[in-house]
Amino acid sequence: MKIFEQHESNVRSYIRDFPTVFAKAKGYRLWDEQGREYIDFFAGAGALNYGHNPDRIMEPLVDYIRRDGIVHSLDMATSAKAAFIEGFQDIILAPRDMPHKLLFPGPTGTNAVESAIKIARIATGRSSIICFTNAFHGMTLGSLALTGNAKKREGAGTRLDGALRMPFDGYLGANIDTLDYFARTLEDNGSGVDLPAAVIVETLQGEGGLNVASTAWLQRLEAICRKHEIILIVDDIQAGCGRTGTFFSFEPAGLDPDIVCLSKSISGSGLPMALTLLKPHLDCFCPGQHNGTFRGNNYAFVTATEALRYWKDNAFEKSINAKAAKVTGCLVELVDRHPPLQGIVAGRGLMQGIKVGVEGLAGEICQHAFRLGLLMETSGADSEVVKVMPPLVIEDVGLEKGLSILAKATAAALGRRRSGVRHVA
Amino acid sequence: MKIFEQHESNVRSYIRDFPTVFAKAKGYRLWDEQGREYIDFFAGAGALNYGHNPDRIMEPLVDYIRRDGIVHSLDMATSAKAAFIEGFQDIILAPRDMPHKLLFPGPTGTNAVESAIKIARIATGRSSIICFTNAFHGMTLGSLALTGNAKKREGAGTRLDGALRMPFDGYLGANIDTLDYFARTLEDNGSGVDLPAAVIVETLQGEGGLNVASTAWLQRLEAICRKHEIILIVDDIQAGCGRTGTFFSFEPAGLDPDIVCLSKSISGSGLPMALTLLKPHLDCFCPGQHNGTFRGNNYAFVTATEALRYWKDNAFEKSINAKAAKVTGCLVELVDRHPPLQGIVAGRGLMQGIKVGVEGLAGEICQHAFRLGLLMETSGADSEVVKVMPPLVIEDVGLEKGLSILAKATAAALGRRRSGVRHVA
Amino acid sequence: MKIFEQHESNVRSYIRDFPTVFAKAKGYRLWDEQGREYIDFFAGAGALNYGHNPDRIMEPLVDYIRRDGIVHSLDMATSAKAAFIEGFQDIILAPRDMPHKLLFPGPTGTNAVESAIKIARIATGRSSIICFTNAFHGMTLGSLALTGNAKKREGAGTRLDGALRMPFDGYLGANIDTLDYFARTLEDNGSGVDLPAAVIVETLQGEGGLNVASTAWLQRLEAICRKHEIILIVDDIQAGCGRTGTFFSFEPAGLDPDIVCLSKSISGSGLPMALTLLKPHLDCFCPGQHNGTFRGNNYAFVTATEALRYWKDNAFEKSINAKAAKVTGCLVELVDRHPPLQGIVAGRGLMQGIKVGVEGLAGEICQHAFRLGLLMETSGADSEVVKVMPPLVIEDVGLEKGLSILAKATAAALGRRRSGVRHVA
Amino acid sequence: MKIFEQHESNVRSYIRDFPTVFAKAKGYRLWDEQGREYIDFFAGAGALNYGHNPDRIMEPLVDYIRRDGIVHSLDMATSAKAAFIEGFQDIILAPRDMPHKLLFPGPTGTNAVESAIKIARIATGRSSIICFTNAFHGMTLGSLALTGNAKKREGAGTRLDGALRMPFDGYLGANIDTLDYFARTLEDNGSGVDLPAAVIVETLQGEGGLNVASTAWLQRLEAICRKHEIILIVDDIQAGCGRTGTFFSFEPAGLDPDIVCLSKSISGSGLPMALTLLKPHLDCFCPGQHNGTFRGNNYAFVTATEALRYWKDNAFEKSINAKAAKVTGCLVELVDRHPPLQGIVAGRGLMQGIKVGVEGLAGEICQHAFRLGLLMETSGADSEVVKVMPPLVIEDVGLEKGLSILAKATAAALGRRRSGVRHVA
Repeated sequence: MKIFEQHESNVRSYIRDFPTVFAKAKGYRLWDEQGREYIDFFAGAGALNYGHNPDRIMEPLVDYIRRDGIVHSLDMATSAKAAFIEGFQDIILAPRDMPHKLLFPGPTGTNAVESAIKIARIATGRSSIICFTNAFHGMTLGSLALTGNAKKREGAGTRLDGALRMPFDGYLGANIDTLDYFARTLEDNGSGVDLPAAVIVETLQGEGGLNVASTAWLQRLEAICRKHEIILIVDDIQAGCGRTGTFFSFEPAGLDPDIVCLSKSISGSGLPMALTLLKPHLDCFCPGQHNGTFRGNNYAFVTATEALRYWKDNAFEKSINAKAAKVTGCLVELVDRHPPLQGIVAGRGLMQGIKVGVEGLAGEICQHAFRLGLLMETSGADSEVVKVMPPLVIEDVGLEKGLSILAKATAAALGRRRSGVRHVA
Repeated sequence: MKIFEQHESNVRSYIRDFPTVFAKAKGYRLWDEQGREYIDFFAGAGALNYGHNPDRIMEPLVDYIRRDGIVHSLDMATSAKAAFIEGFQDIILAPRDMPHKLLFPGPTGTNAVESAIKIARIATGRSSIICFTNAFHGMTLGSLALTGNAKKREGAGTRLDGALRMPFDGYLGANIDTLDYFARTLEDNGSGVDLPAAVIVETLQGEGGLNVASTAWLQRLEAICRKHEIILIVDDIQAGCGRTGTFFSFEPAGLDPDIVCLSKSISGSGLPMALTLLKPHLDCFCPGQHNGTFRGNNYAFVTATEALRYWKDNAFEKSINAKAAKVTGCLVELVDRHPPLQGIVAGRGLMQGIKVGVEGLAGEICQHAFRLGLLMETSGADSEVVKVMPPLVIEDVGLEKGLSILAKATAAALGRRRSGVRHVA
Repeated sequence: MKIFEQHESNVRSYIRDFPTVFAKAKGYRLWDEQGREYIDFFAGAGALNYGHNPDRIMEPLVDYIRRDGIVHSLDMATSAKAAFIEGFQDIILAPRDMPHKLLFPGPTGTNAVESAIKIARIATGRSSIICFTNAFHGMTLGSLALTGNAKKREGAGTRLDGALRMPFDGYLGANIDTLDYFARTLEDNGSGVDLPAAVIVETLQGEGGLNVASTAWLQRLEAICRKHEIILIVDDIQAGCGRTGTFFSFEPAGLDPDIVCLSKSISGSGLPMALTLLKPHLDCFCPGQHNGTFRGNNYAFVTATEALRYWKDNAFEKSINAKAAKVTGCLVELVDRHPPLQGIVAGRGLMQGIKVGVEGLAGEICQHAFRLGLLMETSGADSEVVKVMPPLVIEDVGLEKGLSILAKATAAALGRRRSGVRHVA
Repeated sequence: MKIFEQHESNVRSYIRDFPTVFAKAKGYRLWDEQGREYIDFFAGAGALNYGHNPDRIMEPLVDYIRRDGIVHSLDMATSAKAAFIEGFQDIILAPRDMPHKLLFPGPTGTNAVESAIKIARIATGRSSIICFTNAFHGMTLGSLALTGNAKKREGAGTRLDGALRMPFDGYLGANIDTLDYFARTLEDNGSGVDLPAAVIVETLQGEGGLNVASTAWLQRLEAICRKHEIILIVDDIQAGCGRTGTFFSFEPAGLDPDIVCLSKSISGSGLPMALTLLKPHLDCFCPGQHNGTFRGNNYAFVTATEALRYWKDNAFEKSINAKAAKVTGCLVELVDRHPPLQGIVAGRGLMQGIKVGVEGLAGEICQHAFRLGLLMETSGADSEVVKVMPPLVIEDVGLEKGLSILAKATAAALGRRRSGVRHVA
């Protein structure tokens, strides 16, 4: 650990929550250098939906390396890339009647978002992008302007322009349809809210605290966009790739977004990859107008192609939903059992958690969980949500074991609180 | 190829220059699906300095995968990351007396640049960043504001703010020290050039057309920064990692930059990775204030660690310089032999090329080269430079063969021009 | 009229509504070159609260000119300026316990607003300014960013940054307290609404359509500002100087704004003048840091000093309120009499009018009024409000005559509508 | 004076240089409340070209007031405005073959500039405006972005965007044509200097330190603008209205600017007024798209119309040039006589002065001059220029007397310096 403290920047963060050196991982489990085992309810912040080192995904990769397959190809054509495009088209897009073209930005979520908003702006000739309270879209300047978190915004060190904030579903309580404000500003020539190029939305805000947009709200948002010819971008970087139970998180609401941003689990393996889906009429960059050295990460293409197989039929969806139900049940029970938690179960699919009403307590629960061998992180602007996000492939035994540790950690944290001690030794 | 045409975005670019599907690669050679062999004078735009699939780098990676090594770790501690930090500290930083801390941004060059300018702004409380004509720093909004290329800037679809352009070395001819203007504006309270947070500079502009900053100019730039307490950022993403003959491109000039951006070949394998080096007093992000899902690409750490071995002594540097001399000689001869080229040899190290004075001709030379089995790209705002950028590890036989194809391609393109035909069938 | 059509820019506007050449004016009346008389319910858009050419104000001006009094003095000291400052301090500020200092910006409302937001930004080190839907704050770039009107915003020809829009009182219907959203965003670290430098508000939106902020809403707004140390700016340019019945429009709500912007009627004569009032701790410009050639318009100081006499006791306030009551009664009756108007009486003091529910009808009423010898303008984003804004000094006979013309014009416009003709010959 | 210190904002500035209360003025002279007389070499920073209270201009104004002429008219038609437009067309535009239309912005120079850049942006659809080192264009946000002075820019309290700075003529010494840089960036697709909407230039920088653009430089600038279809804006607010010897300062260079900004002396009396001249194809605002309460200052129209008479023949021009020659001779002699001044005579017409090479000395000279009964101000980013700017109508006796006081003040300031005392008691 000293190496990190001495030589790595202070910006390092998860290492502070999980203070050990990890050495290997498989499925839903990791082991540190001391051989200690951890259950993973964190899943690389959503980048490891298919678990760690899944054989069916990694073996083809080893074969590929052994054959001296192309590693890096920018946007040249390679066999591995062709296979991915073909698979994605056949397994994901075609069955969903999605006519979208594939744009490969740099292999990070923020790059997918940057490419999306650039396209929205050049396609419409308009500048402003509507984004929502508690949104998270990335850390590069264009994406950061769209991101809600105050601390992260301060990191820009300069004024962030071009974004226009609107309240997310539920932001003003259950009885207020927050889209009334947005809708009204668009009808009103004096609102001062310029007609935007695009709206960017997460259907379920991961970093923002597991806030779920209702189907009705999402559909009204889409209708508003259609009426005013505003481009609808769904940032499905964390909630997509099956995390909420369907490949895209917007499937239950029946949305038809103009642009979709994917990253995190799209590579199937944890390798860096991102993908922007565009309706054909928005395919308006000139050749090379948005580029980047690592758009052609062929190892990611190889593993991504393997991961697509999970989506060939609906068995995987069913299994996710079954696990999700188990998690919901468990969390509801936990909240009911511990009124001092002031907990509310939030999220959907395998992206659930508990909004904890006591300041600092969510973090303490995660600290206890780590001591007990479970990796979990908090989310929300004040780290007030305990987030349960196991790999989608987790076996029942692992899920149950993890949930049981969570229950213990919760009890322990509450116990400490009662006895006046807050920090885990 | 149809798959790409039908389903991939129009933004795809290199695929148009190299219209074949590549299947495998080794060292300085690639093969397409038809088994055709190509010599690589492109090197992944500088991401493949150590060649394709070098055994000494890839075998440890396969071992790592076989051991179920961690793939993805955000900024958690892993054994693979620790080994890289230790190696980088011992082999690169310590021998050069560089006290810099390592910040791992998202695994792309633009992310390294974005992290650098954010830090410069929060550290100084100032907003503007000085950048240079024909600079290339990336495609996300913060980096794009610093980038010179008009077409790429238009891709933003909105006003790009926060950058202040200055003329690069040589921009106004040999007799004008372009820093006079910058220096004067800083001394003059009425200049309208606000004291900037930082200067960002490439010592050798790769995308901008192989423009070399002289040692004297770089040293004066550093002195100006010191005098006015401006942070000096070297973007060494393309010119670093040995490309110009030393690990950092600024070593011959003896610069001591406050921040260094690395990416491209830092992973040693073509896998996505980026690294921002900060002087300790600039290590001012809060934990998590700049984050990103793929900061912990452990496969890249594994291969990067292996690649560091090339720098344990100066044998590698010597070999690069020997090859560079060979390239220079060959290019000079080529230019001399073909006055209609109106060619000027440009660049240094293994990042050289010919600025071609005839519009469109550089591209035609590269097209001919491709037909003859050599991958080369152009650079410069008008694609006017033929760029010779082989893997640093290329064997003499490969280098000579490539240079000989270049000579043939040049003659062929000139011949076509004389006979009035421009496009390669 | 030809001279204007041939040589003046298309941007000319009121000349289209009032297509005649005016030659002289007195009190509440104007005469055109043909000697036609007009009653003034427009009052120079609020710049002529004391009527045209009031003897008690203009005679001292003629004396001043005859004595070769200083005309133009930048921010040098003059006798005329001293007299104004003294009078303003004694008659306006001291009795209201206002400790504010006087800053004289350029002699336009927009300049007062620009000075206010500059001060708010340098005083707080923060950038964003909260402004409201349907706000109007001026046409220079800083003020325009705060202004709501879409057409006027488009006039900028570039992205307008630095403003953050919030819904004005009543924007979302009677049952929604629109400040809930603003308040929530400030408490929420993930809201994406950065802590602003200032809030700028009109207590009664003149250009925006006579929208009245309630006392409760204004007081809550002030409380929010205090809690979060946000500077509260009241733009009292149109609603101030007695227009709503008290010198400052915020007096009934008991607000204590940090900065107040005044212009329009502050000079008492229609001569250009503006004034920014600052709490002493916000007096943070360096000498000369905000300047402008016409800050020292001494003719305006002379007439402004005379106008202050109206405020030495409360007789003037009483008379305004009596007239306002008469206007209200008359408008309510008019609305009740003509259900097809779909009218709602809006505003307060002598800044009232009718929000007309039929598209285009408000403008037609004003056209008819002009033909009948009454000057009135519309306001609102869609020119949907008929605005009654006579000089505050109007005699009863003039007020009644004007209101009677308004009644006729309304009937005439409705009659035309019924008969299918819309445009006045 | 106490009234000002107690109640006026710290931003007050000239009052600090000229610490007395002025009471009346006539021609080239002012008197303070103690009856002390001052010769005016300041002329309201260029707003009083026709002197103080000229009978031929003010008497028609008094007549106008006595006739109850319209004071304030926004952009309605008035007899006074018609007369001005007609006179300006006949006396100024027609003889110079200028097809420009007249736009009346708010009555301040900065408003003329704001209207000009808005038009340039909407006409071209481009955002950036080229401006020059040491430019001064005003204090509202759009104009301030174009202004060079660091202290004034800091007053914005936020990032200033949309301007692109280029070196003014002579900025890099006599042997460098500073337009080489601008021209090169426009030819170079990689320069990072986006094609601008407009160039805004002062032919003689008043606030910036009396820097004169040569005829050759101005003509080349115009040619560059024509070639690249960039709008050429001349800000003639200080240098126009005869200040340099011709009505427009750009007449000797034969420029044909697309937009001209006028203010300061355009009203002829020191009353607030501004005027933007547009080529007809740039007359692209919608009605009301740029507005402002005080666009129709009829007193200014009345006096402006009278002032136009000076330009009916070339006698006035001749007299200005004769006086200018006298000033030049005198300044050259002064500089020659006092080598420790390290003085350089700068400027042209009746906008001349001495660039003083000793820090702080220019200000000391002006302080001494004030004590001796002469008003003069400094200019330049470091207040390093003593500026001689009498009313154009000054009689020879006044000019000589003023120059003689300047000579004494210079000697006195140098004497103090030699004896080690810097501040005037």
